[in-house]
Amino acid sequence: MKKNIFVVLTFMIIFGCTQQKTDAKSEGEKVMQTSREWSQTAATGDLEKTLGYWADDAVVMLAGQPTLTGKKEIRKMVEESFKTPGFKISWEPQSAEVSESGDMAYLIEKESISMNDSSGKAFTLYSKGVTVWRKQSDGSWKNVADISTPEPLK
Amino acid sequence: MKKNIFVVLTFMIIFGCTQQKTDAKSEGEKVMQTSREWSQTAATGDLEKTLGYWADDAVVMLAGQPTLTGKKEIRKMVEESFKTPGFKISWEPQSAEVSESGDMAYLIEKESISMNDSSGKAFTLYSKGVTVWRKQSDGSWKNVADISTPEPLK
Repeated sequence: MKKNIFVVLTFMIIFGCTQQKTDAKSEGEKVMQTSREWSQTAATGDLEKTLGYWADDAVVMLAGQPTLTGKKEIRKMVEESFKTPGFKISWEPQSAEVSESGDMAYLIEKESISMNDSSGKAFTLYSKGVTVWRKQSDGSWKNVADISTPEPLK
Repeated sequence: MKKNIFVVLTFMIIFGCTQQKTDAKSEGEKVMQTSREWSQTAATGDLEKTLGYWADDAVVMLAGQPTLTGKKEIRKMVEESFKTPGFKISWEPQSAEVSESGDMAYLIEKESISMNDSSGKAFTLYSKGVTVWRKQSDGSWKNVADISTPEPLK
């Protein structure tokens, strides 16, 4: 009986601590897949679905624009972007790093934004970025910090 | 005796798991303090000390420049920056978020870079940024991703 208690409690100690460890590779792939789906969603122009990938207190930093903090400011920027003539956005994660506890992660990303100039001719801006993510209680990942900066002009 | 075993093992379960938890506030303050010291170090123009804050595999993303990956590429950029006439850099962390396991953190930062134009007159560029950090085995924090993007022109 005493031996059984030891076995059970030893198992509990190991299991109780091990469950906090994360499979960083598969979790990182999950965050990258979320980012890819987000890019596809943004390409459809669906405002609500696109906004759904950001956490309520997310911070967005774009070149030449003031820092956007929270859903209200982000919503305004996305609405205006989707209304811009010829607007197209697309990004692709390059790599993922996940914290040991599996609650925080960041991606290195590459991005392109196209729009029309005043004569109606399309042009494309290329940028690189970092996105930081927090795992939610339901296991999904939401973006908490989203920053991009221009690539050299081609 | 059996009761004592229970008490000890229950304590071990609780302690064994609790020790992985982090004091996010004090750890976040530590990362911000590291960033402040880094800014002060960069202001002195000490190349080696400035480079010492980046992890060996760090990624640096600056506006209009290709992504820099690893110490060799970063060293070249810092060397060139320090040689630029009138070069001055300064940044200040605004807020910190730390992962539950205390091994990953990110800061929201504000930055200014001054240099001289071709006529020798100083000008300043303002930017905002995100820095991502990994805790090292010695308890110190090193930067693993460092990205800034321009503020609106004033």
